[in-house]
Amino acid sequence: MIRTSLRLYSSASVQITTIPKFAQRSTIFSLVQPTGKIHLGNYLGAIRNWKDISESSENEQENTFIFGLADLHALTLPNEASVLKRNRYEAIASIIAAGVDPEKCILYHQSSVPEHAELNWVLTCLTSMGLLSRMTTWKSKVFDSDNAAFGSSEQNMKAGLFCYPVLQSADILLYKSTHVPVGDDQSQHLELSRSLASSFNKQFKSDFFPLPTTLLTPTNKVLSLRNPTKKMSKSDLDQNSCIYINESPEVIQKKVRKATTDSIQGKITFDEVNRPGVSNLINIIAGLKRNSIDQTVEELSWITNHKELKDYICELLDTEFRDTRQYFEELTRNTTYLDKVCRLGSEKAREIASKNMREVKRLTGLD
Amino acid sequence: MIRTSLRLYSSASVQITTIPKFAQRSTIFSLVQPTGKIHLGNYLGAIRNWKDISESSENEQENTFIFGLADLHALTLPNEASVLKRNRYEAIASIIAAGVDPEKCILYHQSSVPEHAELNWVLTCLTSMGLLSRMTTWKSKVFDSDNAAFGSSEQNMKAGLFCYPVLQSADILLYKSTHVPVGDDQSQHLELSRSLASSFNKQFKSDFFPLPTTLLTPTNKVLSLRNPTKKMSKSDLDQNSCIYINESPEVIQKKVRKATTDSIQGKITFDEVNRPGVSNLINIIAGLKRNSIDQTVEELSWITNHKELKDYICELLDTEFRDTRQYFEELTRNTTYLDKVCRLGSEKAREIASKNMREVKRLTGLD
Repeated sequence: MIRTSLRLYSSASVQITTIPKFAQRSTIFSLVQPTGKIHLGNYLGAIRNWKDISESSENEQENTFIFGLADLHALTLPNEASVLKRNRYEAIASIIAAGVDPEKCILYHQSSVPEHAELNWVLTCLTSMGLLSRMTTWKSKVFDSDNAAFGSSEQNMKAGLFCYPVLQSADILLYKSTHVPVGDDQSQHLELSRSLASSFNKQFKSDFFPLPTTLLTPTNKVLSLRNPTKKMSKSDLDQNSCIYINESPEVIQKKVRKATTDSIQGKITFDEVNRPGVSNLINIIAGLKRNSIDQTVEELSWITNHKELKDYICELLDTEFRDTRQYFEELTRNTTYLDKVCRLGSEKAREIASKNMREVKRLTGLD
Repeated sequence: MIRTSLRLYSSASVQITTIPKFAQRSTIFSLVQPTGKIHLGNYLGAIRNWKDISESSENEQENTFIFGLADLHALTLPNEASVLKRNRYEAIASIIAAGVDPEKCILYHQSSVPEHAELNWVLTCLTSMGLLSRMTTWKSKVFDSDNAAFGSSEQNMKAGLFCYPVLQSADILLYKSTHVPVGDDQSQHLELSRSLASSFNKQFKSDFFPLPTTLLTPTNKVLSLRNPTKKMSKSDLDQNSCIYINESPEVIQKKVRKATTDSIQGKITFDEVNRPGVSNLINIIAGLKRNSIDQTVEELSWITNHKELKDYICELLDTEFRDTRQYFEELTRNTTYLDKVCRLGSEKAREIASKNMREVKRLTGLD
């Protein structure tokens, strides 16, 4: 595939089909939750995109790439401390193993930069209750819990979950980020960050915060291998539904073999409604090969049955993650190195964050 | 008046009628909002109490007194930056002028210690939506706005106002405070801080946070001089309703003269239902003289009409605030000194806060 470049500044939300070239002095920012090992959905939806964007030689100069782990967000789910601690190590090891270079990017934990929480409070004071209660992520959680057997309702849910999108806006705005690569399920949250940037600028008579552009990742959402109406998720009870990037080829093969397909014979076709399982596999191949769905279907025209499709995807996954797996094992054994990477990353992040937060305090009258 | 001492440890909420003696290594903590000049209600309800508690020779050793300005809470109301900045100076000058000694207490601005916001987020993740929506301060604000001419409703209100009591709990718990002197309108918020301390200890299997005891200030709520069914408030449109501790004797006399009383002749009596205006004045005298209401009514038995009552209260206020007024003027001219006091205070506060927040991070798995 030939990678072409694309100037990105016109619109608030852009689907990136190729590696974007950023205007000088852009700040590209994204965090993922440290849920431990990284699965294929996280990889194609975020991490590989971080790597591609930051490694493109066109983007080397003058731009700042800030990536990391949203461990404060992880507190919105009940976690044992030891589990969160382990998840943080596994997530950072996976990110580096997947090829995100700490020399080229700032890699850090959100909780190590206190300015995230500080700006979060300032923005919480600018966010209306209505805006937060209309977030689809919140509504879907209220809906889930209303349907839960234990009869939980909105009243029992934690305020952290309700205020979650404000912290996400604070994360982005803290670095005056210009571009935020995310999956399309995060578009509404990114819209909130733009809205809060505008509210802040208006209320405090400044143009301090730029309005960040959303970069929608090129790969469509990766779905569960076993139930392709749901997102691939680490918390799925059926672990055959989810492939981790550091799993052995044998385990990956076993999971792919068990992936739900359909009973339609002959050539494979992309049809999310009638062939969700096969379409999910085509989407994964498109993602791995950085191709469009149409290109992928054309290239797979030699395939005549599901077994050939599954063999092919196993081969691709093996090639993609051969080095990742081993590097991940080495990294998780070397927590001293991981600590050092995150410490250096957080020092660089704080340098930017503290400067910007000082200015926020000056603009709001807190200094 | 003879000041006796009282050991305070048994109950979650204690009305202090005399200056308490604290067990060694107690931490006594309280903040007020920096709404600028301090009025009589703030003074009798909080500031003078800070002074009394921290100055009592019985409390000198081994106890920590932390008092300051909740400037992050001030962001829940729309403020011009320049107004907030001025209010912060005027409030800190008023506190020092009223006799709170920066040598004996830590005096600081909440926003200068980022750990407040950090702990706030951790606790927001432990607080249920139901708990916050049942806070009477929130409900009264929703009720007020529902009745407002502009038709504002809960949906238009800011999330900062909703989450306000969580930040207040974070303030208290950040210093592992053992005692919190507040007015009785804050009892429910203090109850929340105990509940969150318990939730945290339970969820993270520790006994890290002590459950703070509420010290209800000895003086009953001071009411508006003009409409003694409402609290005395800086935001009252009728400024004759509110006495500031740094006003000239002439202004104070004028306001007292205009204070609402009643048409009942003869001896003064304390009767909040039928004689709210007179009862409010008696309460102010009781506060100023550190006496009970009953004692005060007895001591005022020589008074035969409202004029004598008002003359007497003017005399008391003049004596109480003669030095305050001048000292306040000097201090507001010397912002360098005020900055220095707050900087030293925030350094001392951060020493405690950062140690405790490190431990919170360790317990939650963020470190």
